[in-house]
Amino acid sequence: MLNFTFFNPVKLLFGKGQIAQLAVEIPRTARVLMTYGGGSIKTNGVYDQVMAALSQHTVLEFGGIEPNPRLETLLKAVDLIRREKIDFLLAVGGGSVLDGTKFIAAAVPFEGDPWDILAKQSPISAALPLGTVLTLPATGSEMNSVSVVTKEATQEKLFFSHPLVFPRFSVLDPEATFSLPACQIGNGIVDAFTHTMEQYLTYPADAPLQDRLAESILLTLIEEGPKTLADPTDYAARANVMWCATLALNGLIGAGVPQDWATHMIGHELTALHELDHARTLAVVLPGVLAVQRGGKQAKLLQYAERVWGITSGTAEERMEQAITRTRQFFEAVGVPTRLSAYGVSSDTIPVVVERLVSRGMVALGENRDLGPEGVRQALALSL
Amino acid sequence: MLNFTFFNPVKLLFGKGQIAQLAVEIPRTARVLMTYGGGSIKTNGVYDQVMAALSQHTVLEFGGIEPNPRLETLLKAVDLIRREKIDFLLAVGGGSVLDGTKFIAAAVPFEGDPWDILAKQSPISAALPLGTVLTLPATGSEMNSVSVVTKEATQEKLFFSHPLVFPRFSVLDPEATFSLPACQIGNGIVDAFTHTMEQYLTYPADAPLQDRLAESILLTLIEEGPKTLADPTDYAARANVMWCATLALNGLIGAGVPQDWATHMIGHELTALHELDHARTLAVVLPGVLAVQRGGKQAKLLQYAERVWGITSGTAEERMEQAITRTRQFFEAVGVPTRLSAYGVSSDTIPVVVERLVSRGMVALGENRDLGPEGVRQALALSL
Repeated sequence: MLNFTFFNPVKLLFGKGQIAQLAVEIPRTARVLMTYGGGSIKTNGVYDQVMAALSQHTVLEFGGIEPNPRLETLLKAVDLIRREKIDFLLAVGGGSVLDGTKFIAAAVPFEGDPWDILAKQSPISAALPLGTVLTLPATGSEMNSVSVVTKEATQEKLFFSHPLVFPRFSVLDPEATFSLPACQIGNGIVDAFTHTMEQYLTYPADAPLQDRLAESILLTLIEEGPKTLADPTDYAARANVMWCATLALNGLIGAGVPQDWATHMIGHELTALHELDHARTLAVVLPGVLAVQRGGKQAKLLQYAERVWGITSGTAEERMEQAITRTRQFFEAVGVPTRLSAYGVSSDTIPVVVERLVSRGMVALGENRDLGPEGVRQALALSL
Repeated sequence: MLNFTFFNPVKLLFGKGQIAQLAVEIPRTARVLMTYGGGSIKTNGVYDQVMAALSQHTVLEFGGIEPNPRLETLLKAVDLIRREKIDFLLAVGGGSVLDGTKFIAAAVPFEGDPWDILAKQSPISAALPLGTVLTLPATGSEMNSVSVVTKEATQEKLFFSHPLVFPRFSVLDPEATFSLPACQIGNGIVDAFTHTMEQYLTYPADAPLQDRLAESILLTLIEEGPKTLADPTDYAARANVMWCATLALNGLIGAGVPQDWATHMIGHELTALHELDHARTLAVVLPGVLAVQRGGKQAKLLQYAERVWGITSGTAEERMEQAITRTRQFFEAVGVPTRLSAYGVSSDTIPVVVERLVSRGMVALGENRDLGPEGVRQALALSL
């Protein structure tokens, strides 16, 4: 096992009716800015529940945070907050709203150009306190300190992470997600699955507990994912997918083990270039990365084949191939295509993605830092 | 899945050489009281590592906290702290030192008789900050807010839990545990295993992820436990057992599921009466409780039999019986006897245990509150 530090102070309030807890979780004297996205919370009842819980609070609103939240939008919120002397942020939405709000929290007290927090990884020394109400199980943002933001002007999608932007609390009510369209649930399942794979499917590190915890999440997503798609109001299935998505990226399963993240780095470029949903880029990239990297990943790919997919016969090469195929089939089965062509993206994009990665120095990705430009090209070519 | 709140702000520093981090984790201006037990830390190098890390700090010492830490001892530390204006506690030891130090932390600012914190569950509103260096993987105290204390005068063993006594940080260096005697490692394995079972082996609650997380810990203890007993300096095996013990009782696997804890309640009485090690009481009590409660626990006992022990043939009754037998055999195999007679305790103790539980109103234990005095009697009678 590798040395590690684990720290995650987020208070989770999980279950039916938990939105009402906002009344006590946010200080009564706070001036609250509620951030949200396209406005679906106003039709699905979440907005009304939040406002009812905060009826004794001073609440302003900032809507319109888009998927892959944009710097240009978020800076408008920063201006509003400085002007209105807001001192508590409540993000109500999915990963994009939460990520965007973390950036806002860090940007408000930041001196200088806030984009430097991501582009130059400039240190921050303060952030506004924030809480969240999660309406889309997927990214894990509700229980981590990571934020991914896109700069529209340059089509750059970058991230930062800092303990100061851990949410103080996150409310996870599965019922608040019942009205989501199936495509967003499918995306969430793929996102959580891939987060788990990025921390699990590397090389053995004498960490059998971490392996089993990761396999627990994968098996549960495989079992519960199709259930929640078939019946969106099946509370148990939705709750189980939601809990999987949170634990897939709260630091637990990655503690003490090597991590990959090449799929995410490549996927971010596809989103920046083609505005593909984050999860869809992962569904396209992961199978190819696993295939190209199967040398270094062989031991874990065989373990994954056996423990997650029950594949026990055939040569090592055949079992790895089957496991990758089953992964691709699972993504397709939850409604997420795994081929660039399904999204109208041609092979012309491959050299552009490679060039963009190279231009930012990302020439050696993966847990062994051995996935270079040629490997990225091959991985994408496998998913045309 | 049941509604739940999960909050665990403990910062874990896990791995080789992490004791050196104390230098930065404890504020330089703090007046530190280092608490410890029987003094083994002075022969195994841990004391020297701690003192080296804190060479720039003001450090006082309080040794002699015994297994099943006693109120009478801990109150002496409270006096010392008030006199010396200590403002940070560093517990260096196993679960007893950590539990005792949590009580001290709460008792120092408490107005009134500190025993009321346990006996009357009197609310606390402040506690000294504390950190820990764990030297014995077992109780999970390093990452939870629970403290169990024994009042010698009345032979009462009671507990309290409060967020204010979460450690600010805990250092877990597997190498600091290499010199432990085998019996203590065996105890730790049984303790972690039983903590997991108390949260897992109840009834199905539509929580497949929690089930698998618990099974992950059980399987890893079964795999790594014998390894670390066979070779105490096998770093990976010891690290894996240590991480299992922490995750067995940090709130994660119990979030959203029913919990039992009857075995602990009964075991505490055996410790109070006969000074049996905590884990040894669990090894005695758990098999009997599972057998007596197998009606309400049938679905989970069958799942446990199959997923943890690979038992798939026989009638339901036979498979449950086999699973309980395998559990007993595992405890014995890690060096922990599971019969009262092995500890020189006769059947005379059974009515005394039952009477003590009844006298404190514990007449309906377990996840279904259906384990009464007669059930406790039967459970203990199965482990004579």
